[in-house]
Amino acid sequence: MYRSHTCGELRSSDINNTVTLSGWVQKVRDKGFMIWIDLRDRYGITQLIFDEERTSSALINQAKTLGREFVIQIKGTVIERASKNPNIPTGDVEILVSELQILNEALLPPFTIEDETDGGEELRMKYRYLDIRRNPVRKNLIFRSKVSMAVRNYLSNEGFIEVETPYLIKSTPEGARDFVVPSRMNAGQFYALPQSPQTFKQLLMIGGMDKYFQIVKCFRDEDLRADRQPEFTQIDCEMAFVEQEDILTAFEGLTRHLLKEINGVEIHKFPRMTFDEAMQKYGNDKPDIRFGMEFGELNEVSQHKDFNIFNQAELVVGIAIPGGNSYSRKDIDKLVEWVKRPQIGALGMVYVRCNEDGSYKSSVDKFYDQDDLATWAAKTKAKSGDLICVLSGETNKVRPQLSALRMELAERLNLRDPKVFAPLWVVDFPLLEWDEDSERYHAMHHPFTSPKPGQLELLATNPGEVKANAYDLVLNGNEIGGGSIRIHDKKTQALLFGYLGFTPEEAKAQFGFLMNAFEYGAPPHGGIAFGLDRLVAILGGQETIRDFIAFPKNNSGRDVMIDAPATIDAMQLDELNLKLNLKS
Amino acid sequence: MYRSHTCGELRSSDINNTVTLSGWVQKVRDKGFMIWIDLRDRYGITQLIFDEERTSSALINQAKTLGREFVIQIKGTVIERASKNPNIPTGDVEILVSELQILNEALLPPFTIEDETDGGEELRMKYRYLDIRRNPVRKNLIFRSKVSMAVRNYLSNEGFIEVETPYLIKSTPEGARDFVVPSRMNAGQFYALPQSPQTFKQLLMIGGMDKYFQIVKCFRDEDLRADRQPEFTQIDCEMAFVEQEDILTAFEGLTRHLLKEINGVEIHKFPRMTFDEAMQKYGNDKPDIRFGMEFGELNEVSQHKDFNIFNQAELVVGIAIPGGNSYSRKDIDKLVEWVKRPQIGALGMVYVRCNEDGSYKSSVDKFYDQDDLATWAAKTKAKSGDLICVLSGETNKVRPQLSALRMELAERLNLRDPKVFAPLWVVDFPLLEWDEDSERYHAMHHPFTSPKPGQLELLATNPGEVKANAYDLVLNGNEIGGGSIRIHDKKTQALLFGYLGFTPEEAKAQFGFLMNAFEYGAPPHGGIAFGLDRLVAILGGQETIRDFIAFPKNNSGRDVMIDAPATIDAMQLDELNLKLNLKS
Repeated sequence: MYRSHTCGELRSSDINNTVTLSGWVQKVRDKGFMIWIDLRDRYGITQLIFDEERTSSALINQAKTLGREFVIQIKGTVIERASKNPNIPTGDVEILVSELQILNEALLPPFTIEDETDGGEELRMKYRYLDIRRNPVRKNLIFRSKVSMAVRNYLSNEGFIEVETPYLIKSTPEGARDFVVPSRMNAGQFYALPQSPQTFKQLLMIGGMDKYFQIVKCFRDEDLRADRQPEFTQIDCEMAFVEQEDILTAFEGLTRHLLKEINGVEIHKFPRMTFDEAMQKYGNDKPDIRFGMEFGELNEVSQHKDFNIFNQAELVVGIAIPGGNSYSRKDIDKLVEWVKRPQIGALGMVYVRCNEDGSYKSSVDKFYDQDDLATWAAKTKAKSGDLICVLSGETNKVRPQLSALRMELAERLNLRDPKVFAPLWVVDFPLLEWDEDSERYHAMHHPFTSPKPGQLELLATNPGEVKANAYDLVLNGNEIGGGSIRIHDKKTQALLFGYLGFTPEEAKAQFGFLMNAFEYGAPPHGGIAFGLDRLVAILGGQETIRDFIAFPKNNSGRDVMIDAPATIDAMQLDELNLKLNLKS
Repeated sequence: MYRSHTCGELRSSDINNTVTLSGWVQKVRDKGFMIWIDLRDRYGITQLIFDEERTSSALINQAKTLGREFVIQIKGTVIERASKNPNIPTGDVEILVSELQILNEALLPPFTIEDETDGGEELRMKYRYLDIRRNPVRKNLIFRSKVSMAVRNYLSNEGFIEVETPYLIKSTPEGARDFVVPSRMNAGQFYALPQSPQTFKQLLMIGGMDKYFQIVKCFRDEDLRADRQPEFTQIDCEMAFVEQEDILTAFEGLTRHLLKEINGVEIHKFPRMTFDEAMQKYGNDKPDIRFGMEFGELNEVSQHKDFNIFNQAELVVGIAIPGGNSYSRKDIDKLVEWVKRPQIGALGMVYVRCNEDGSYKSSVDKFYDQDDLATWAAKTKAKSGDLICVLSGETNKVRPQLSALRMELAERLNLRDPKVFAPLWVVDFPLLEWDEDSERYHAMHHPFTSPKPGQLELLATNPGEVKANAYDLVLNGNEIGGGSIRIHDKKTQALLFGYLGFTPEEAKAQFGFLMNAFEYGAPPHGGIAFGLDRLVAILGGQETIRDFIAFPKNNSGRDVMIDAPATIDAMQLDELNLKLNLKS
């Protein structure tokens, strides 16, 4: 038996007891006549003491050989600590050691195993097993486990059944790129790893499972943007005999439960907003509504003068920065530079200072008088002391630009409080979105999403106008979940595939099994999927998902710890009926 | 809202209430003036009634159009049933329908959606979504979900943390064949899908996570034997600072909990048996101990006469079939044929009838007298009325032959009661096993398993004799879990890799990250993994894992429903820097 107690367990009530502890040497303080060691395990830290008067010199000498991160086992007596440490639960006691066994030695770790480490990202990823010993990383992983269990228990209690769907499935060109898996037993053929269990969960509904969920890994072979992982975890859910309202109610329930259980925050009813409204008010379909700074559209009140930039713009739109009139000319110039950076891409920015005396001072005073500027202030809800920032141009470009500015300013003004939770349903998404590259419409959510009742006819004339029974759950400016009511009849599905550019043959080859299934009594159904990595990060008050993944990959999709991917044997390739075809 | 109640919910107390139900048409009984419909969903069946006196003729005519598996929604009043059906919970009531909406029509299903279906395996797999509508399949999937939740709740309450380990890892030639995943971003390189999260869970222990578990998919590209799947699910567990006894106690606790919670069976202490003893007594390292028929070794009492077949055999061994003396000569001849089939491979079988009068009659009376046969009966614990079956030959061959016979006979004698649960720990497995094909030793469990203390020296002289800290949990003749205490120091691990035929370079290339990790303070650790598919099947009183998997693959590794694997686009291959290399 390696231990009678963990390192986080002993209290005053254990004084005089003999105990056995095992753990890592966190710190050695050697005063010559007295040695203190902080012994660490997952559960906490317990102080060990060796002293000349009470400890044999052999044992003291042995203790002197211990280095950081050595793994040791000790036996000793719990005694009262001379100077107590109120910061840790075991701080009232220490262990007077009588036996010491070194279970494993340790090289000096390449970075310090402390809350604030000196190790950079790359180094910590390479030695992730050491990084995990650090409190913040360990706590994040334990937190993730707790959130997963809370999700499972809630959904199980609500009658959802967790069903495991297969990982070796079939490649479909729609959507992102699949990872594929060559089949040795079926020469020349490939499985694909699922981008999501979408079709399987729909088949489960057709199979009468009624309420399904699964916490499941999904895979996308995309060029990785910052904070994206090639493998990620979804809370995947589906319900039969439901309308949109049923889904929103069910998963608002789940999210409310998590906020309460995990964060102790009670939120009664989540606000809802249409996609169009979100775009108009926040330039963004996942607005952070923890703070205001809503967009004020200014076309009406800015296109009547000789300022051609505005007159030619499809949209003139501004936001008021609270207290922004305190910015110096230089500060404002920097803001202008910030929105003109290629990542944002604005051509310029007009500003209006709202002075304390009620007057305005703008960068376009040549064109607009005080009355004009007062209407801008009214539209953007600017108050004295604020600064109005105005962008103009094509609606589809200027909205994301102003949205980026809004988020940046909120960050700078500390308006994005990680302890505040502001969930929001965004509903009525468009069914299709125009893709510039391929010059055709793509499914905005996915090709199984049903149009709003009665809008199917619009597909022929105004496809971009068709709204879908699709919804996103947004939390603090992040999309944490998204879903839709699905198509459940073959005719509509075939029509949709047609609009999405599938020939009937392609639709059949790729999704024939689903279209067939629709003919054997498919119930109305719909669902939602949450990104667990992001959900956990946000509930944990952070936004970097990598901090909540045990063994994440870097931006090239590599695991630098195990050094994967890697080359494989010629024999392995041969067995798979493959040859490398490297471009020189 | 599609329904106010499910089809399993209504009782007498609901009589006179107006309800809305949705579901599938299970059965239509049309008596002309009266129509009954069984409406089915996941939760049960509710009877609908339409009758000339109380239902409009328009509605009756609409009801007459309904076919099997149509999806409908009805409104109606709960009324008392004239002839109650005590076999279903809703059997006291029926619904007098006032509104009917067809939500989706259905083609005639290719097999009947009944507990006993007319559909063959292949057809049911192709239309698995219809198969899942059948009670037995649906119940199995719900049962699986329940077992998974019970496992998770138990382990979480015991302080285990569920940590998700990566699916895109690195290929290692040791063990079974990996499925590989070409990396587009890292040309010419491949990920592998995990055969198990073995190295990651060890790294988590080195990372101080202390107690880890995960219910996780694993992948093996093996030629499929019956009832093996290329993807399967493991309950994967690891603990730090443990000896074998700690692991056995912890997971005996889990298994005991499951037997209680899921099956209502209380088992206090699981018996233990060494590998050697299991082989000697049952010819098998996963003996079914629900029944006796233990092996009696007969060398001592059978090699003193002129019967050369026995005299030349390494092992002469028998079992007593309870009541087997009732077998006719023809029955016995059939048994002899059975053991001589190539799948079993025995060269012949000697038998001894134990007559009611205490005398014996054997197929080798020419060589052995009554006293000899009495000693055989004593060794095999045969009683009057039994039949002793004796096989002989090489120990390693004859034991599995007799074990197969024992299991076959137990099956015929109905001694394998699925309602009885007999768990057993088999411990002290050999560290290595000889592989005839490659003519070298392989790790019996895996290369990270630690030898028993003090046995490391034997490696040089008698490698086959070295016992490991390895154990299996056996339930009703099936291995449901297996694990070991791991090596946790670099030197021992390097030594083992050497014995397993790795050059130091190979060991470093494949497991360098683990060997490095051992140098930074690795704690003693060990673990176990349960095969969830099999565990669930056995707890469910069955042995076919396919019945407990939502979308299983067939014996060629194909999903016949979605028709995967399949060919992929030339462009996809090209992006992956691969070419097909098909053998003609």
